[in-house]
Amino acid sequence: MDLAFQLYEFIALLMISVAVAIVVKYVRLPYTIALVVVGLLVGLANIFPEIKLSEDLIFLLILPPLLFEGALNTDLGELRSNFKPILCLAIVGVLVSVVVTGFLVRWLLSIPLSIALLFGAMITPTDPVSVLATFRELKAPKRLSTIIEGESILNDGTGVVIFGLILEMVRTGHFSLVSGMVEFGFVTVGGIVVGFSFGYTAYRILRYIDDHLIEITITIILAYSTYLFAESVHVSGVIAVVTAGLIIGNYGRLFSMSPSTRIALTDFWALFVFIVNSIVFLLIGIDVSGEKIFVYSMETLLAIPVVIAGRALAVYPLLTLTDKISERIPARWKHIVFWGGLHGTIPVALALSLSDIPHRDMIASMTFGVVLFSLIVQGLSLEYIVKRIFRREESIYEEHIARRIALKRSIMEIERMRRDGEITGNVAEKIISEIKVELEEISSKLLEIDVAERDLLLKARKRILHIQKSVIRDLAIRGTIGEDVVRKLTKEIDSELDALE
Amino acid sequence: MDLAFQLYEFIALLMISVAVAIVVKYVRLPYTIALVVVGLLVGLANIFPEIKLSEDLIFLLILPPLLFEGALNTDLGELRSNFKPILCLAIVGVLVSVVVTGFLVRWLLSIPLSIALLFGAMITPTDPVSVLATFRELKAPKRLSTIIEGESILNDGTGVVIFGLILEMVRTGHFSLVSGMVEFGFVTVGGIVVGFSFGYTAYRILRYIDDHLIEITITIILAYSTYLFAESVHVSGVIAVVTAGLIIGNYGRLFSMSPSTRIALTDFWALFVFIVNSIVFLLIGIDVSGEKIFVYSMETLLAIPVVIAGRALAVYPLLTLTDKISERIPARWKHIVFWGGLHGTIPVALALSLSDIPHRDMIASMTFGVVLFSLIVQGLSLEYIVKRIFRREESIYEEHIARRIALKRSIMEIERMRRDGEITGNVAEKIISEIKVELEEISSKLLEIDVAERDLLLKARKRILHIQKSVIRDLAIRGTIGEDVVRKLTKEIDSELDALE
Repeated sequence: MDLAFQLYEFIALLMISVAVAIVVKYVRLPYTIALVVVGLLVGLANIFPEIKLSEDLIFLLILPPLLFEGALNTDLGELRSNFKPILCLAIVGVLVSVVVTGFLVRWLLSIPLSIALLFGAMITPTDPVSVLATFRELKAPKRLSTIIEGESILNDGTGVVIFGLILEMVRTGHFSLVSGMVEFGFVTVGGIVVGFSFGYTAYRILRYIDDHLIEITITIILAYSTYLFAESVHVSGVIAVVTAGLIIGNYGRLFSMSPSTRIALTDFWALFVFIVNSIVFLLIGIDVSGEKIFVYSMETLLAIPVVIAGRALAVYPLLTLTDKISERIPARWKHIVFWGGLHGTIPVALALSLSDIPHRDMIASMTFGVVLFSLIVQGLSLEYIVKRIFRREESIYEEHIARRIALKRSIMEIERMRRDGEITGNVAEKIISEIKVELEEISSKLLEIDVAERDLLLKARKRILHIQKSVIRDLAIRGTIGEDVVRKLTKEIDSELDALE
Repeated sequence: MDLAFQLYEFIALLMISVAVAIVVKYVRLPYTIALVVVGLLVGLANIFPEIKLSEDLIFLLILPPLLFEGALNTDLGELRSNFKPILCLAIVGVLVSVVVTGFLVRWLLSIPLSIALLFGAMITPTDPVSVLATFRELKAPKRLSTIIEGESILNDGTGVVIFGLILEMVRTGHFSLVSGMVEFGFVTVGGIVVGFSFGYTAYRILRYIDDHLIEITITIILAYSTYLFAESVHVSGVIAVVTAGLIIGNYGRLFSMSPSTRIALTDFWALFVFIVNSIVFLLIGIDVSGEKIFVYSMETLLAIPVVIAGRALAVYPLLTLTDKISERIPARWKHIVFWGGLHGTIPVALALSLSDIPHRDMIASMTFGVVLFSLIVQGLSLEYIVKRIFRREESIYEEHIARRIALKRSIMEIERMRRDGEITGNVAEKIISEIKVELEEISSKLLEIDVAERDLLLKARKRILHIQKSVIRDLAIRGTIGEDVVRKLTKEIDSELDALE
């Protein structure tokens, strides 16, 4: 049997991933980008001749946990307070991108419009893994992360649904805008209904159990069974699993799990997704090097600017529009949303799933090329841009504040340790006096920074309220405060936020 | 492709497992036994016609994590202080069992001695999952758990090695005691060398990394790669993976991981093993119902008392012998060691791996029958026996002590919460006065229990020292105390223990 062989390959890929993960700590290259590059090299060296990402592998094994974990860690409150830009990007934005990319591709490459639109739908879903990793490192604004992550989670759903509709039209040769839109609505709403039913059932079961092994196993079952069931009744599995994940992440985790279960659950899914993502990005590299991107290099080189143009024409007009109906998004954030629309797992999966349609090889190669370009060129340049933008005075100011809070907490902890007899009074005093010197330095540095401008102050106030909200959420997850308190405090902060607008 | 089908089956099995896990919380049946029974029913109902435990599946995917996790959580210090009985049981005991069972089977069933010995080797390894679960629940003596767990971890190795040697002799028709013993030594020592090299390398790498995702992934790689490499150079993979697990569990976890990584690591492996064990015990039930145990029911009914006799002739004489050279093992513990030698995954795996030998069907059926009998009849009666034995005054005494400690800790925690302003002084005082009432009740109950007997006192002192050792280990794992302190305190306690002998 080749189970042994598969296991060897899996362990070998894990070893390469871990080696890459260790090396990137020193060379400061984003992990996912390093994986794709190493994957390319491994693919060119032909070390794993038989390894391939298959459609089944991606859609059945890989996608459900990735989507579920993303939704699990999405704060529905944050999402709700930014739902206008997010929904605009994830629904209207996807449609604009698909149409713009489709028409441009047809015009430039003279292929049937339906095939060109299929390519547009395939390439549109975004994957923010490496972007968000950079954000976390730089402590970028929470709201910007929320918009990018929210868009990505939802446009996976719309992108895949539109792809499926166009593919059916290509295969049947029958095209109808009305039936397409009806189908779109059915698949989307059906996915939400399935996801909600499964998620809510799991939530009720979780309330009755207090055993973290069983509870985590239930979330694994939930992620896969929601996806499989939704697909088997021909509604969107992607949308269903995201819906279920949002329910567990926002209600199940808070209200039906003990604090230690919450930590174990978050840890487990983080590990699962770390392993799955490592393997996927390596395999993207390996697969791309095996595909015939060089045969269609002209087409691929044309596709890259076309896809970027499609994204630009979706992001800028829509976000300018939403500025009028919700909190303004700063201009430079718009650049980040636009340029940070990297393409990852989903386009590759969709390309691999194509088989019996005209120009299959060409649009698959174009997809692989665009994914590669976005991950490496856009990914790396974005890191540079984001660093430049957020290394401003306000972030330095926040850094000092954060450091001051951390130092003050440390003093409290040292005092607690002295009280409990873990350290002697002498040691405690020595450490505390050292910390106080540092505190004074920070205070003098804070005085040097000019924070008088009204704009900055307003922004800071808003951000502080957002931080408070997430602190409250963390406290709730850790079990320090209960359900009622969470709701009351969140409501208070929301009304303060409204007042600032 | 049938990946979808496999995933469906896996999720369905997980669902059944979770349902069983939830139900046993109410009916108080041991989890693994309930799984086997449900597996039998599922198998008879023929719901999963195509599902089967294959040799590859067990040896490649399932065994390495089970063995690794077992070793990871084995305290080498505890093992060392009981190494005489454990090694006697796991090496001499296995040989005695194999020989006794083999000769009895040959005599009763008139089959070739080599085949009869093969059956003896196959059925000997013990699996303490359900026994240890019962122990944990009843707070049985740590030393008894250590002996049973230590024997099981090591006799997997010797049992599988002896099985391999006899199988080779059956296949080649060539028998030589000398070359057999040389081979046994080579395979065992080779396994230890491979396990030590891999484990030590991983330990050194773990020291340089502080990222729990990467660290846990390294332990996954370690478990599988150690097993695969050892098998590929024809030494014992079982012994290698156990050796590597002992190194990481006892040195790697303590000295090269941060506290949060240690918790995440323990949680992850517990979940992994929970899932793997759930599936395995279900599949044992399903497989057994499919095998032809009824065709060979006479032979199976004979095999059950024979295997029990083989175990009795190994356990009682050997433990009587070790009483003379190390700390005495109480008579009723010996009964538990004897009757608690349940047979689980390994015999089933070995039986499934047989193909082209004479009487294959018969000895496979006998193995399944004995496994089933041991899990259900021995497992259930053992639970009853263990409960009767340990529900004695001394355990009630300890219970009160533990409760008193917990209550005193609670008071400290409440006072900390008041100091930090988490609760008001009023609330704190109310709770504290409630706790003090409980404390007084416990003190008066403790006075009622007569603990004057010297024997009980000695035992209690020893046990307390053992408890202290494990508390120290826990503190080290949680990062409260450092490496040097652990060593110093452990040494002190060990010398006190020696003084008590």
